[in-house]
Amino acid sequence: MVSLSNFSYIIEILGTVAFAMSGVYAALAKKLDIFGVLVIAFVTALGGGTVRDVLIGATPVAWLKDTHTLLIILATVAIALLFRKRMGNFQRTLMVLDALGLGLFTVIGIHKGQMMGFSPGVCIALGTITGCFGGVVRDIMLNHIPALFHVKELYATTCIAGGIVYFALRSWLGEDPAQGVAVATISSLRIISYLRKWYLPPL
Amino acid sequence: MVSLSNFSYIIEILGTVAFAMSGVYAALAKKLDIFGVLVIAFVTALGGGTVRDVLIGATPVAWLKDTHTLLIILATVAIALLFRKRMGNFQRTLMVLDALGLGLFTVIGIHKGQMMGFSPGVCIALGTITGCFGGVVRDIMLNHIPALFHVKELYATTCIAGGIVYFALRSWLGEDPAQGVAVATISSLRIISYLRKWYLPPL
Amino acid sequence: MVSLSNFSYIIEILGTVAFAMSGVYAALAKKLDIFGVLVIAFVTALGGGTVRDVLIGATPVAWLKDTHTLLIILATVAIALLFRKRMGNFQRTLMVLDALGLGLFTVIGIHKGQMMGFSPGVCIALGTITGCFGGVVRDIMLNHIPALFHVKELYATTCIAGGIVYFALRSWLGEDPAQGVAVATISSLRIISYLRKWYLPPL
Repeated sequence: MVSLSNFSYIIEILGTVAFAMSGVYAALAKKLDIFGVLVIAFVTALGGGTVRDVLIGATPVAWLKDTHTLLIILATVAIALLFRKRMGNFQRTLMVLDALGLGLFTVIGIHKGQMMGFSPGVCIALGTITGCFGGVVRDIMLNHIPALFHVKELYATTCIAGGIVYFALRSWLGEDPAQGVAVATISSLRIISYLRKWYLPPL
Repeated sequence: MVSLSNFSYIIEILGTVAFAMSGVYAALAKKLDIFGVLVIAFVTALGGGTVRDVLIGATPVAWLKDTHTLLIILATVAIALLFRKRMGNFQRTLMVLDALGLGLFTVIGIHKGQMMGFSPGVCIALGTITGCFGGVVRDIMLNHIPALFHVKELYATTCIAGGIVYFALRSWLGEDPAQGVAVATISSLRIISYLRKWYLPPL
Repeated sequence: MVSLSNFSYIIEILGTVAFAMSGVYAALAKKLDIFGVLVIAFVTALGGGTVRDVLIGATPVAWLKDTHTLLIILATVAIALLFRKRMGNFQRTLMVLDALGLGLFTVIGIHKGQMMGFSPGVCIALGTITGCFGGVVRDIMLNHIPALFHVKELYATTCIAGGIVYFALRSWLGEDPAQGVAVATISSLRIISYLRKWYLPPL
């Protein structure tokens, strides 16, 4: 769908899986029943792209036309529930998948904005929405203030940084390499900020 | 609008009335003013179809073009407020209307998905959204975790069961009878689970 | 965009500024970080028009195509944060700007509804959504029950009153003067209800 290499298709699926898993754990922490867990997993994995598609008018939204994604999320929920006792062991793996998904989803959102002819600032906003709003809708449904707005790590900020890197490098490196560098920037900044506890101060 | 019999038009109105009333009582429990009560009644009655229409791109959404529905909801709110002291007496009636509305709204959503050419799984998801998301948006606005995700009765699950029944019977019984059986399945499962307190265990 | 005089363009910007500022203060009260403050400012200023445009299918929504508005909101957030210690002094000024913005946003929403051929009741609903739903989405994101539904002042009610005034006067006064009277009605009713503490009783 985007002009990223085929390799990116696999990363997109891994990102979807990671986002769905983060939904499952957030829902389990609130003691939801299996239907609630399913909805929260779908919302977390699909919410960002859905909000983006609704805002730009790209409807029907993508997942309605793509049963594959729904089946991948269903399978993820089944596996996450089966292994839920042992999930503590995989927390680092999940964190890395989530960071890769964040980078790739952001770049996909930026790319969609460019195809609609929007300005770079608007494209970065769309990319950030694509990467982050699944988690925002998840947190609203679970009756939290979205973690994104106050959490003690960098999250959305890494999407904005990656977007700026992309637009700075694009005319110089070409489209595909600039996208690759942007994904790498977002994912590695996210991982480093998680490990080193970098964050934006509250005001 | 759907190929259900004309009888279904009356059930659709009764379902809208029941959903609007459930919004009024939820809003009264939070001591909202009359404007708040009105908005919550509208959101509960129209929210599911609105989310569906936005996702599939069927805009302007239906209620903008149909002043009748808005007037029916206004009248419902007026009557519900006038008789609010005595409403405890009608709780069973309301429960049955809500169950009929749930069944019909779900089948309408499935039908819209079929007209867009979506796969059965996606159609069932759209039907469930149509039946249930009015209540989800109501609960989010009232600052609850949506009851749907943890309540000790079957609700969304009955929509999914009805959707499966519909697709299992369609080629065998024909379109209209399969829709009728699906509405009956959803409504009766919902009523039985309410009376017998059947529910999905928390995880 | 609307047939109001050019003067209205300035009021629209002032209204956007006032709405963005109200978002900044609401976010500061919840101790969000700078990214959270930014998102809440954008949501408060743009949310009403965005919900309206999504419902009527006017996508891509307006702010995606208008980088000016985004820059004005960014500048507003920067200034609001710099002067946040002294903001108590400007509370009345902000209240007046907010009231002017409320009036103008409502009339813009009514006008968009008329261009789509909707009935007066639906147009007034769209106008009220345009004026008020930025604050509703802000409150949902900050985990409040929307102030609009229970606050001890008139807010949405003034939009409905202004809409009725507009449709009553339009054929008699002509389009532009009727819009002007509606903006004046909404803004002055809002200011008076704030000063005199007029409100709808809870039920």
